[in-house]
Amino acid sequence: MEGYGRFLVLLVSALLLGFLSVLFALAWVFHYREGLSWDGGSAEFNWHPVLIITGFVFIQGIAIIVYRLPWTWKCSKLLIKFIHAGLNTIAMILAIVSLVAVFDFHNAKNIPNMYSLHSWIGLTAVLFYALQLVLGFAVFLLPFAPVSLRASLMPIHIYSGLLIFATVIATALMGFTEKLIFALKNPPYSTSPPEAIFVNTLGLFILVFGALILWMVTRPHWKRPPEQNSKIQQPNVGTPEGTEEGSTMTDCSNTDKSDVEFNSEAAARKRNLKLDEVGQRSTM
Amino acid sequence: MEGYGRFLVLLVSALLLGFLSVLFALAWVFHYREGLSWDGGSAEFNWHPVLIITGFVFIQGIAIIVYRLPWTWKCSKLLIKFIHAGLNTIAMILAIVSLVAVFDFHNAKNIPNMYSLHSWIGLTAVLFYALQLVLGFAVFLLPFAPVSLRASLMPIHIYSGLLIFATVIATALMGFTEKLIFALKNPPYSTSPPEAIFVNTLGLFILVFGALILWMVTRPHWKRPPEQNSKIQQPNVGTPEGTEEGSTMTDCSNTDKSDVEFNSEAAARKRNLKLDEVGQRSTM
Repeated sequence: MEGYGRFLVLLVSALLLGFLSVLFALAWVFHYREGLSWDGGSAEFNWHPVLIITGFVFIQGIAIIVYRLPWTWKCSKLLIKFIHAGLNTIAMILAIVSLVAVFDFHNAKNIPNMYSLHSWIGLTAVLFYALQLVLGFAVFLLPFAPVSLRASLMPIHIYSGLLIFATVIATALMGFTEKLIFALKNPPYSTSPPEAIFVNTLGLFILVFGALILWMVTRPHWKRPPEQNSKIQQPNVGTPEGTEEGSTMTDCSNTDKSDVEFNSEAAARKRNLKLDEVGQRSTM
Repeated sequence: MEGYGRFLVLLVSALLLGFLSVLFALAWVFHYREGLSWDGGSAEFNWHPVLIITGFVFIQGIAIIVYRLPWTWKCSKLLIKFIHAGLNTIAMILAIVSLVAVFDFHNAKNIPNMYSLHSWIGLTAVLFYALQLVLGFAVFLLPFAPVSLRASLMPIHIYSGLLIFATVIATALMGFTEKLIFALKNPPYSTSPPEAIFVNTLGLFILVFGALILWMVTRPHWKRPPEQNSKIQQPNVGTPEGTEEGSTMTDCSNTDKSDVEFNSEAAARKRNLKLDEVGQRSTM
């Protein structure tokens, strides 16, 4: 892998920032706010930032770059797809629970739902995320979708995934803004009390976390190589040409045959001088 | 150009949304707020959203996709670089004036500056934008930077440009949130008065505008072709091989010689099977 050291530094930085963000979210609600509970009060609302930052920011970020981790390249792509889908499913569940918490809190306190720009964009992001998850599962994980459909949907899947991730971070920043204005009254937000500085810092953390994830995932030289490359790189495995590329996979099982087909199609396209573009598309 | 019709539809949609956003910003401050003036009052503050949306969102968005407009491909790249740099300079000036307006308003009203997450991220974005402008000017517009420096900085220039653009939109959404909470008291924001719906809609407009710009600029098949391709595509021009590619440019002057060199180096790299990556990088 070209620039492996740089990748590691960025990955460790992103993981640290992600962990720090979750810790900050917990410290925010336990040290400055009412902690966590499920009683219709402020402590129920507090699940909202904690679960969004844990699931919808941190876990979604990891799900985005899971294909880029070079030590997973010897595993079958199907396994990594399952991890990608699994992490996104966890993020989705946490996002839904966090929405239930905030609607429950609003209803208990007679606060209207869905009036703010934060709620409009946030709910839109959750709905698109659900659609992305279902479509991703149906097209890329299940073995039924034709290769041509996979190829044409892949750039949209990648783009919309990254757009939703960026939108989630923007929505979280709007949420911090709302909460700090509403919650900090005496002293108010404008006098920069410690909680304001603390949560502003948390906002910077998730912004930089997002920036690192987006940088790592858009570098073409850090892209997971196609499965057939593993064979080329491991000539001693002795797999006869034309047989299943999956047999070159080590340490992991579950080779994704449909994906191998996809890569074979890609190789064919390359011979037709067309892969260049598909490769770039899926690099986005 | 592959998918020219689709590109046109997206471009027209983006332009419409951009214009609508500017119109909505003006309608917001003139219909719902105190209009525009420079008196230290709320009407001075109102320059802030109007100029940010006009310059830092709309004009910056156009500056980002100016290389993608296919009818500019017959012009020299230097000319398009000047337009790109010029539009970004206009956006920078408008952003600075909009910051002066808001600081002036705060000082006149004894409101503290720089306490909110919106201000932290917004000022950071402006500073990085200024740095990006100066570095872009020095490295890509002036003819002094060596080709290797241009090649290594290009992916960073593209990535940081798009990151700043996305961050500016996120910051604008935080700004709408702040302003609506502060300004709408009777009836409050939570009761969804017409102004709240109007500005929330404006927020959605600039979010979708940003999404369209980012989609258009990250499609590799809509990338401006390298200058030497123009020559290949126009064999009747009869330029002897090895002479300045600029002479194949029609309708426009100012061929960027340093850029031609850059493209020649790129062609050489292609022969060395290395361009693939550089090409993908600059596609991001």
